[in-house]
Amino acid sequence: MAASEQPIIALTMGDPAGIGPEIVAKFIASHKKSDPKIVVFGDQKFLEDTARNLHLNLDHVHIVARPQRDKFTDPVNLVPVKGGSLRDVKPGHPSAATGRAAMAFVEKATDLVLLKELDALVTAPIVKKAINDAGYYFTGHTDYFATRTNTSKYAVCFVADDKRVAIVTGHVALRKVHSRVKLARVIRTIALLDDFLRSTGVAEPRLAVTGLNPHAGEDGLLGAEEQSEIFPAVEACKTQGINVEGPLSSEAAFVGHLDNKYQGIIAMYHDQGLLPLKVLAPFKTVNITLGIPFIRTSVGHGAALDIAGRGTAKTDSLKNAVALAAQLARAAKKA
Amino acid sequence: MAASEQPIIALTMGDPAGIGPEIVAKFIASHKKSDPKIVVFGDQKFLEDTARNLHLNLDHVHIVARPQRDKFTDPVNLVPVKGGSLRDVKPGHPSAATGRAAMAFVEKATDLVLLKELDALVTAPIVKKAINDAGYYFTGHTDYFATRTNTSKYAVCFVADDKRVAIVTGHVALRKVHSRVKLARVIRTIALLDDFLRSTGVAEPRLAVTGLNPHAGEDGLLGAEEQSEIFPAVEACKTQGINVEGPLSSEAAFVGHLDNKYQGIIAMYHDQGLLPLKVLAPFKTVNITLGIPFIRTSVGHGAALDIAGRGTAKTDSLKNAVALAAQLARAAKKA
Repeated sequence: MAASEQPIIALTMGDPAGIGPEIVAKFIASHKKSDPKIVVFGDQKFLEDTARNLHLNLDHVHIVARPQRDKFTDPVNLVPVKGGSLRDVKPGHPSAATGRAAMAFVEKATDLVLLKELDALVTAPIVKKAINDAGYYFTGHTDYFATRTNTSKYAVCFVADDKRVAIVTGHVALRKVHSRVKLARVIRTIALLDDFLRSTGVAEPRLAVTGLNPHAGEDGLLGAEEQSEIFPAVEACKTQGINVEGPLSSEAAFVGHLDNKYQGIIAMYHDQGLLPLKVLAPFKTVNITLGIPFIRTSVGHGAALDIAGRGTAKTDSLKNAVALAAQLARAAKKA
Repeated sequence: MAASEQPIIALTMGDPAGIGPEIVAKFIASHKKSDPKIVVFGDQKFLEDTARNLHLNLDHVHIVARPQRDKFTDPVNLVPVKGGSLRDVKPGHPSAATGRAAMAFVEKATDLVLLKELDALVTAPIVKKAINDAGYYFTGHTDYFATRTNTSKYAVCFVADDKRVAIVTGHVALRKVHSRVKLARVIRTIALLDDFLRSTGVAEPRLAVTGLNPHAGEDGLLGAEEQSEIFPAVEACKTQGINVEGPLSSEAAFVGHLDNKYQGIIAMYHDQGLLPLKVLAPFKTVNITLGIPFIRTSVGHGAALDIAGRGTAKTDSLKNAVALAAQLARAAKKA
């Protein structure tokens, strides 16, 4: 990307049976020229049908059959991706067919981001069961990107307003979480969040790490992982010059984040990291993958199958995901 | 309690090395005659010293050496409890001595509440390690009250403003949580929260149950407990006429609670239930024990050893705990 250009952001359509096509159609229909340039990866007919049902106009969308950077001439571009027939798709009913299509959109978009034809990738929600039924054995986008780029040292980070929360474990059954909270993984997640905050302009990030157990284990009475894994990880990061405290009870860590005592939180598992942001900013939360070799953000919600096809889905999280991707792409350009 | 009387609320002093004595002293120093009648259980000299250091006046406190209902004549009363010497207590440094004293206050207050000399019990924070060092092998107040009253069917509930969250498991190491999320326990917790909401005047409570796993297990891909335990529990409660939905992702359940779609949430474990309330209302959260044969609330925070002795502790949660106890005592009187 030349210094003068706006970043170009890839945006996948998501699972056709979820709210992805709806929020993507709404978002591009209301796209302004000052917004980052968008390249949608999806099923052209399905997206057009979705837009028609919502009385949205997509006439301004530029169809790019042979995608490369200099062909993305318009504010909103669409790369049509063949992912199999979507004729029988019913909103709220994902299937192997919708899972296959959703992954085809992601694969094509990833190809082009890795080729640097695009500056960042934003994903709409997929349905894990559907992609599994289609033969893609990933627990989600993040897992796919890590595998695709041969990255073992990555982390999911949730962002909402000025809140930043990286999680040590992600899409893992709760019963397995404790076995994955290990020294090296905690150290890595702390370092990834520290790097991320620095990359967004925070000079000396102040971080806090939560405990795994209630009250951070209360001196070992409610669990040992704080003493065996988390505390040593925090100490190791301190010796590397990272300004980090913990393990704290999750409540203390997050209340400290609200007070700006900490500018980022490392939480131990999915709900511990995501739930506080969701109640503070239900529609704003965005997901970013740290540690992979390209910029990738995502809406912070799922495919919302219960409201798919009703036209009521909100685009707030998607707008924030695109804005964050563009911000990071601009920062990467300067660096 | 006669219909004309204000409820009389027992209030324990908490661990002497924590912020309990400070918040109790502040609270009773600013007590108004219109507030519920208070009976503090604690160490008289320690509380007086604490008040003096904070420049608070406790001259209005009525010392009641032989406690019974008709002796609690003043707005604020104190029952001096001998719990061993506290001469060497340093703020922030709990010990077997402070643990022993804290439990002596709780035991004496419980005696009188069980004898119905008092209408409800509010507790200031204890330190679990200290009570364990003193030979009290409980994981906390709730465990003690359950054992003391021979109650196996109880639950912890967090309250903040109009939020109501009961938890299926409490002070349990995260690695053990999954093994305690069992059908009968989930049913019991749903029923206890339903009862509680009805007792506070909600005619037909609408409840939601969270999943144990991320995204409520995503159709079994991220854990099986939703299908084996939680969903059957929800169905069983529906057949009993309880208006309950779930399991939902914890985010969906709590966002629905914020929207008043649900008036109460059943969460699966400590941090999943407490953390969202703490970020929404850091100092207001109160803890209530459901299922035991008396009314008991507690401050929603711990002994805060890091700020003990500094004079900066806030009394908001204690005020809310007393107000909730009084409200429930009045409701029980009417029933």
